[in-house]
Amino acid sequence: MKNAIGHKVWAIAEGYIPPYGNGPEPQFTSHETACILNTSDQEANIKIWLYFSDRDPVGPYVETVQPRRTKHLRFNDLKNPEPVPRDTDYASVIESDVPVVVQHTRLDSRQSENALLSTIAFAGDSH
Amino acid sequence: MKNAIGHKVWAIAEGYIPPYGNGPEPQFTSHETACILNTSDQEANIKIWLYFSDRDPVGPYVETVQPRRTKHLRFNDLKNPEPVPRDTDYASVIESDVPVVVQHTRLDSRQSENALLSTIAFAGDSH
Amino acid sequence: MKNAIGHKVWAIAEGYIPPYGNGPEPQFTSHETACILNTSDQEANIKIWLYFSDRDPVGPYVETVQPRRTKHLRFNDLKNPEPVPRDTDYASVIESDVPVVVQHTRLDSRQSENALLSTIAFAGDSH
Amino acid sequence: MKNAIGHKVWAIAEGYIPPYGNGPEPQFTSHETACILNTSDQEANIKIWLYFSDRDPVGPYVETVQPRRTKHLRFNDLKNPEPVPRDTDYASVIESDVPVVVQHTRLDSRQSENALLSTIAFAGDSH
Repeated sequence: MKNAIGHKVWAIAEGYIPPYGNGPEPQFTSHETACILNTSDQEANIKIWLYFSDRDPVGPYVETVQPRRTKHLRFNDLKNPEPVPRDTDYASVIESDVPVVVQHTRLDSRQSENALLSTIAFAGDSH
Repeated sequence: MKNAIGHKVWAIAEGYIPPYGNGPEPQFTSHETACILNTSDQEANIKIWLYFSDRDPVGPYVETVQPRRTKHLRFNDLKNPEPVPRDTDYASVIESDVPVVVQHTRLDSRQSENALLSTIAFAGDSH
Repeated sequence: MKNAIGHKVWAIAEGYIPPYGNGPEPQFTSHETACILNTSDQEANIKIWLYFSDRDPVGPYVETVQPRRTKHLRFNDLKNPEPVPRDTDYASVIESDVPVVVQHTRLDSRQSENALLSTIAFAGDSH
Repeated sequence: MKNAIGHKVWAIAEGYIPPYGNGPEPQFTSHETACILNTSDQEANIKIWLYFSDRDPVGPYVETVQPRRTKHLRFNDLKNPEPVPRDTDYASVIESDVPVVVQHTRLDSRQSENALLSTIAFAGDSH
C-alpha cells in the first residue's frame, strides 16, 4: 500500500454553515465537514485558515491527524482562535506538513428533509 | 501561508437556475453560485462569460474579489450586460488576472425540501 | 477569452437513471445529464460509449456541439444504437475531436422531494 | 476508443454509511458506492483499504472488475476481512493493477426523502 497519498495545500472555496437544522443531533445538525485522510506513517500537523467576504482571514486553527487515520473535522466544532460564524459565507485553506487528501461535505437540515453536497477539495500545490 | 492558490481560468459546464423556489428568501431562493477564493495579496479582476445552447456567449460580466477574501457570487444577481435567464441551460467560463479557486453550487428549492449540488470547477489552464 | 478549454477524453464512472420520478415533466423526470461545454471555434464531434457491469460497451452515440455552445445532454434521450436502460448501473466515456469540459449531474425524483448530485467528470487524457 | 483511462491509486476521504433508511430496499437503503470503471482490455484486480479515526486500517478487500466493465461497489456489501461499520466515519484507498476511474456516491435515506452526493475520487498517483 502506498504511503502519503495527496497534497500539502488544499482549498475549499464554498463554505456556509446553515444557522439551524432539523432532526436528531448531532447527526442531523446542519454542518460542514473537511474529511482529512492521512495515509502516511507520520502525524499530520494541520493548519486551517478561514477566508471571509468582508474581513481578514482567521487562523490558523491547529489540528492533528494521526498516522494512517482519517479525521472528519466539522467546521462547526472549530473554536480557537474563534468559532465559525453561522449563516455566513466563508472559504478555507488547509495546510499539512505531510500529504493528505481533503474532501468537503455539507449536510443541510434546515428543511425537514436533509440535503447533501460533497466534492474533493482543490489541491493547491499541484501546479 | 501560501499566496495565490489556484488558477486563472475556470469552467463550469453545468448551469441552470430553477425558475421558482420555496422557503424564506433569499436563503431558499433557488440559485447557483460561483464561490471564488482569492488568497493572493492583490485584487482579483474577474471576467465571466456565459455560454448557451442556441446563441452566442454573453459577457464579460465584471467582478472584483478583494485580496485575501472570498466572494460567493450568485449567478441570479448578474445584471450587466444582461440578467441570466431562468429555466435555461447555460455554462460559464471564469477568468481572473490572479490565481483563484472556484467552486460551483446549486440550491434547488422548487420542491418543498431543498436539494444541493457542488463541485470544484474545472481548471482550464492546468494543462 | 481563451479558446478550447478542456480535454478530449472524459469518463463518468457513476451512471444510473432512476426508473421513475415525481413532479412535472420533463424538469422533474429522474434523469442524468452530461453537460458539455465547447468553448472552441470549431464544432465538437462527440462520441459516447456506455459501459455496463455484465455486457460489452455500447456505442458510439454520436452528438455534435456547435462552436461556443453548451449542450446539456440527457442520457435518458440517447436512442441510437439503443436506449439507455433504466434502473441499471452504467458508466460512460465521452470523446471529442476538440477540447471540451464535461460535468455530470443527476436529478433523482423517485421520492416526492428531488435530490441532486454533480461532479466535474474525470479528464482521461490529462496524464 | 482509448484503452485504460484513469489511475491506479484512488482515495476517498469522506466515508459514512448512515445506520438506517427509508423506502424500498435495496434501492433506498442508505448506502455508499465506489463506482469503478475499467476501460482496459485486462481484468482489474482491486484492493481496498478502509481508514478509521481511532484504529488501524482494515484490508485489503479484494475485488475484480472485468475488462471493459463497470462495477458499482457498495461499501455496505464488503464482508471480508470484516463488514464496514455503520454510523462510523471512515475513508478509503482503492488500488488497481490497471488504470481505472473511481467515483464516490452516497444515498442517504434516513429521512423520508433521500439525499445524494457524488464526486470523482482523488487520483493518488497523479503527482
